[in-house]
Amino acid sequence: MVGGGQGAFIGAVHRIASRIDDRYELVAGALSSDPARAAASAADLGISADRSYASYEEMARAESARADGIDAVAIVTPNHMHASPAIAFLQAGINVICDKPLAATQVQADAIGAAVKAAKAKFILTHNYTGYPLIRQARQMIAEGKLGTLRVIQAEYAQDWLTESIETTGQKQAAWRTDPARSGGGGAIGDIGTHAFNLLTFVTGLRAEALAADLQSFGAGRQVDDNAHIMLRFGGGARGMVWASQVAPGNENGLRLRIYGDKGGIEWGQENPNVMTYAPFGQPKQLLTRGGAGLGGGGSNWTRIPPGHPEGYLEGFATLYTDAADLILGRGDGALLPGIEAGMDGMWFINACIASSKADGAWVKR
Amino acid sequence: MVGGGQGAFIGAVHRIASRIDDRYELVAGALSSDPARAAASAADLGISADRSYASYEEMARAESARADGIDAVAIVTPNHMHASPAIAFLQAGINVICDKPLAATQVQADAIGAAVKAAKAKFILTHNYTGYPLIRQARQMIAEGKLGTLRVIQAEYAQDWLTESIETTGQKQAAWRTDPARSGGGGAIGDIGTHAFNLLTFVTGLRAEALAADLQSFGAGRQVDDNAHIMLRFGGGARGMVWASQVAPGNENGLRLRIYGDKGGIEWGQENPNVMTYAPFGQPKQLLTRGGAGLGGGGSNWTRIPPGHPEGYLEGFATLYTDAADLILGRGDGALLPGIEAGMDGMWFINACIASSKADGAWVKR
Amino acid sequence: MVGGGQGAFIGAVHRIASRIDDRYELVAGALSSDPARAAASAADLGISADRSYASYEEMARAESARADGIDAVAIVTPNHMHASPAIAFLQAGINVICDKPLAATQVQADAIGAAVKAAKAKFILTHNYTGYPLIRQARQMIAEGKLGTLRVIQAEYAQDWLTESIETTGQKQAAWRTDPARSGGGGAIGDIGTHAFNLLTFVTGLRAEALAADLQSFGAGRQVDDNAHIMLRFGGGARGMVWASQVAPGNENGLRLRIYGDKGGIEWGQENPNVMTYAPFGQPKQLLTRGGAGLGGGGSNWTRIPPGHPEGYLEGFATLYTDAADLILGRGDGALLPGIEAGMDGMWFINACIASSKADGAWVKR
Amino acid sequence: MVGGGQGAFIGAVHRIASRIDDRYELVAGALSSDPARAAASAADLGISADRSYASYEEMARAESARADGIDAVAIVTPNHMHASPAIAFLQAGINVICDKPLAATQVQADAIGAAVKAAKAKFILTHNYTGYPLIRQARQMIAEGKLGTLRVIQAEYAQDWLTESIETTGQKQAAWRTDPARSGGGGAIGDIGTHAFNLLTFVTGLRAEALAADLQSFGAGRQVDDNAHIMLRFGGGARGMVWASQVAPGNENGLRLRIYGDKGGIEWGQENPNVMTYAPFGQPKQLLTRGGAGLGGGGSNWTRIPPGHPEGYLEGFATLYTDAADLILGRGDGALLPGIEAGMDGMWFINACIASSKADGAWVKR
Repeated sequence: MVGGGQGAFIGAVHRIASRIDDRYELVAGALSSDPARAAASAADLGISADRSYASYEEMARAESARADGIDAVAIVTPNHMHASPAIAFLQAGINVICDKPLAATQVQADAIGAAVKAAKAKFILTHNYTGYPLIRQARQMIAEGKLGTLRVIQAEYAQDWLTESIETTGQKQAAWRTDPARSGGGGAIGDIGTHAFNLLTFVTGLRAEALAADLQSFGAGRQVDDNAHIMLRFGGGARGMVWASQVAPGNENGLRLRIYGDKGGIEWGQENPNVMTYAPFGQPKQLLTRGGAGLGGGGSNWTRIPPGHPEGYLEGFATLYTDAADLILGRGDGALLPGIEAGMDGMWFINACIASSKADGAWVKR
Repeated sequence: MVGGGQGAFIGAVHRIASRIDDRYELVAGALSSDPARAAASAADLGISADRSYASYEEMARAESARADGIDAVAIVTPNHMHASPAIAFLQAGINVICDKPLAATQVQADAIGAAVKAAKAKFILTHNYTGYPLIRQARQMIAEGKLGTLRVIQAEYAQDWLTESIETTGQKQAAWRTDPARSGGGGAIGDIGTHAFNLLTFVTGLRAEALAADLQSFGAGRQVDDNAHIMLRFGGGARGMVWASQVAPGNENGLRLRIYGDKGGIEWGQENPNVMTYAPFGQPKQLLTRGGAGLGGGGSNWTRIPPGHPEGYLEGFATLYTDAADLILGRGDGALLPGIEAGMDGMWFINACIASSKADGAWVKR
Repeated sequence: MVGGGQGAFIGAVHRIASRIDDRYELVAGALSSDPARAAASAADLGISADRSYASYEEMARAESARADGIDAVAIVTPNHMHASPAIAFLQAGINVICDKPLAATQVQADAIGAAVKAAKAKFILTHNYTGYPLIRQARQMIAEGKLGTLRVIQAEYAQDWLTESIETTGQKQAAWRTDPARSGGGGAIGDIGTHAFNLLTFVTGLRAEALAADLQSFGAGRQVDDNAHIMLRFGGGARGMVWASQVAPGNENGLRLRIYGDKGGIEWGQENPNVMTYAPFGQPKQLLTRGGAGLGGGGSNWTRIPPGHPEGYLEGFATLYTDAADLILGRGDGALLPGIEAGMDGMWFINACIASSKADGAWVKR
Repeated sequence: MVGGGQGAFIGAVHRIASRIDDRYELVAGALSSDPARAAASAADLGISADRSYASYEEMARAESARADGIDAVAIVTPNHMHASPAIAFLQAGINVICDKPLAATQVQADAIGAAVKAAKAKFILTHNYTGYPLIRQARQMIAEGKLGTLRVIQAEYAQDWLTESIETTGQKQAAWRTDPARSGGGGAIGDIGTHAFNLLTFVTGLRAEALAADLQSFGAGRQVDDNAHIMLRFGGGARGMVWASQVAPGNENGLRLRIYGDKGGIEWGQENPNVMTYAPFGQPKQLLTRGGAGLGGGGSNWTRIPPGHPEGYLEGFATLYTDAADLILGRGDGALLPGIEAGMDGMWFINACIASSKADGAWVKR
């Protein structure tokens, strides 16, 4: 693991996710750019001192040289620190599991892209919400034509934790996420908007061809967007809206997806991810549950416990890790795993939003 | 009543709404442009034959001449037939209660505006959703500053009844609503988008200064929009989105409003209108109920039965009729009643949406 | 109308309900046992002075003697004052629409029963919740065998308005409802428990054969039950539970019904009465809406406005009034209307609950 | 681990739960009474062959003799196979984490009780629902008096998986759970009723003093109850109801708890465990979320990820394992962990339900 030392958030999530299905063991790390914190964090996590590294470069070098070197590295640093370690490990032949978004800048993203292309090692981007069973069920239903031709996509990701400018108070998570140097130019659009965009793309299979965006920074003194209004046009004629906000009081982690075709509609929300509504046009709406009655396969393929026993965020995240293990071991094709393409798509989304908003909401095409 | 003969929808709604609080009696009508249907409809409704008129002109003339002439007329015709009767009755000194939107064209709207200005009679536009008690409660809470400075407004009105092009099958409601000659140039934006726009304006007190719209017609052969994506900019810096759709399977009458300020947020949906969530930032979200515990006045002023006994669409509509009766009788100031200004605002909204969409989503300012 | 003068609650509800479908006109009343209040109330309601009576006896006599006498009387007095006026009007040949429960005592109930038997006039008991469209839909679905053989019935009616002993503060509604002399021996079981019992009987068509009850009075100094726990055994082997409470904080008017058979289940709650879930065993749960997609008749027969436009308590109540008008005019058979049998069944329920609770929860059979 | 071999359900749950917080490693097992299956299961799980035992007796003996022997054993066998291994490990000085209910018979339960009393090793019973953060939050709020004096407790646990008699089709989970020889005399009451009873006891701190039960077996040929109706009387005067059912179509794992006192009420459901409503009497109902705004400690003590990121069944289960690790290592007092007393309480509940039902619902006291 690179990053994820004491005080970090997403690193701990990756560690739990990797443990749930018992497919990974954490044996090495460069857990912090601060050597003392790196060492202390490694000790906390039971990593032996000789495999706790002071830098990712050293780690890539040393681990690739060991006979029992790591099979994969998780990169859980802030956005601007994805590219360098990702490239180093890919070049060292080590599989990379990288947090999203792909990078802080397009230049960094392109460099990763080139490294992925040149490498035999795999690259997985943890757009973890694609691991929810009902999300995969929805993708399958749409692919099977249950909704008919898609027309309208409404996606949103609403939070409220940046309602006040807590980045000025020393809150570490807020500080780097609102700092353009570390997050990239995007705020809400990079942190959560890309999740919404990735998810709608994953589920619908549609390709966004153009977008128009109106980005706002409501927090006093804030340098990046904390609210984003976006209109989308997809190949095939479907249209969409994305709303991403970090300043919507009462919303904790409100990622929601609503998809409508000429034969039916689907609605799902992340905060209660074990339920999805499916409305075949002209018939009563159905409440589909994770692994529940009448689903016919799909939804129960990526679940560990019976319907009615809720699974959550960590289990969905774990499914990505498990799929990655299968991919690395050649036991699966990773067809459902987000990778470099999803990452590039996300970069296009972030950059197009910024460009459109600067151009007063003009449509930006691919 | 003008319009509302056999086979009509909204006329029956107006009649029930006017009866609920026992403030009106239906005594005269020009219920259809087809004289036979007008007479038959009048007989059905217990209107005496001598006050069933073959035309609105005749009705306005005759009723204004009677000592016991009507106090008010309800105009419940398709959009393109609002202006002429409204003007006739206003000029005859008879109060007008008119269905929305104001008119099919700006020219018609302006003519009504001039007539209202010249008349002593009152003009009420039945944006009925403003009659819901919790909507008025929300308006009051925002006016009192409970949400702080408003930042983000998300409004939507989703239906599915035009998923298929039923206007080609003889369905009367669909036929006129998708016919530009009768509905005006707007489809979904005029029929339901104006409701969403009116409601958000009513509740927030904000004035929209510009909008950008992307209108679509998904129904085969359809001549007006059936799905609308709109971004809004308000005076004071707040931003908003409106989504109006008649092609979203699983949505019956999904008018929803979400409003966020720097101190709190409110969320409300029309299909279960007796509940609203209020999230004071940093505190648990509250479930406010119509007339329920801890509301302090507001929400219980426009309700007839105790909390937990649901009121619905007809009761909210009735509240507008009752307020109108009070206004007409000089017992109330009608401060909460939508009138000509709301109507003009709605016309701006419809026309700006069409203009923006034609200009590929360019911002249209006031 | 008998009762329903100034300060009353249910009288106003009956008046609105009778108006909604324009089938009744209020022309006479004995609105209060206090002559001054009766007269003032009549004036408020536009009843002419000569048809405002000082007593129900006088009203029954006078109205039956008039050529244009009333077709029906609504009795909206406290429970102990149902029997005398009901009998008087029935004997005068005037149809009676009576609030529930039937009476305060079995003696009174039997007297009404005898009068109904002897009379040509009709007797309707306003168990208004049977008027909700989805309740009638549920009844029809069960009759058609959609749930298979019924097994388990869970009914409840939870409120919180008597959490504190407000009957000691002069609150009029609380005062009579907690006074055994006026309400009968039952508190919660008579006021709301009978509604739950009537509703489950109406919907399932089952006949309760025995019950065991544990009644409690939690309010300080309260003389009647304010919380009731009841187990039921039905003919055919189904079992049930009823919970009725007036001391459950957070519950406004929580009447809920859950019914399970060997082929499916149904769940419905009064506070959002426009939605019902239907779970055919082994298939996804369906969200049925009032008059909504795929209902096939039933649910849309007793509704005035399209799905998604919520109807509420008053509309359901109005449906009983309209059915009663049809019955009185010979246009309908009143098959869905609660009458004397439902009233007698409710009296059995109340008395059996009291008897069982006194016998420490022993089963009381029919 | 004892039990939990190939084809088992709850064993896999225990293994995941033990991994989530990285406090356990699975190193030994007697995974099946069938030696071949035991060995194969051990191999699947990475247990070395020399620590895969053919019997729990051998395992207890061998592991207690090793210097690096196990710290704790998880017993995940059917009910009738809890006592013998539990006693063997306790006597061998090894801490026991045992699935619920405590045992199939009171004799077995008493034997475990004696062994616990005699042992230094700890005994934890995995009533896993007590590990949900909001359940612990509710317990704390009640202890602090937020609900005042408790009056009414409504608990239920509804499922539908035994609607049809699948135990006759070879379904392994159904087979042992409906076999009195393996499950004990109780069916639904032992499998899920005890969970509901344990949970309400845990949250309220009340002690049940008497109960009256009506147990039913609806499944054709079924030998144990599949639906249970129970009334409860608690010390201090509170009353309650428990409904447990395995034949309620549309219910997957509907464990719900509603608790009312004279100052407020709380409602919680297991299927969306990250939300709880709290209604302080006379004020708006609040939506409390796991670790969410305004909770003041409690709810966030046993959570791994931020509010809005749902945790589920496995995380709650993991919290019990983590608390057990702390207890075993002397880092915690295990005050929130269910142990032998909870187990004995559950046995009383099961046995009292059976006895009361046999006595036609007579009250059974402690």
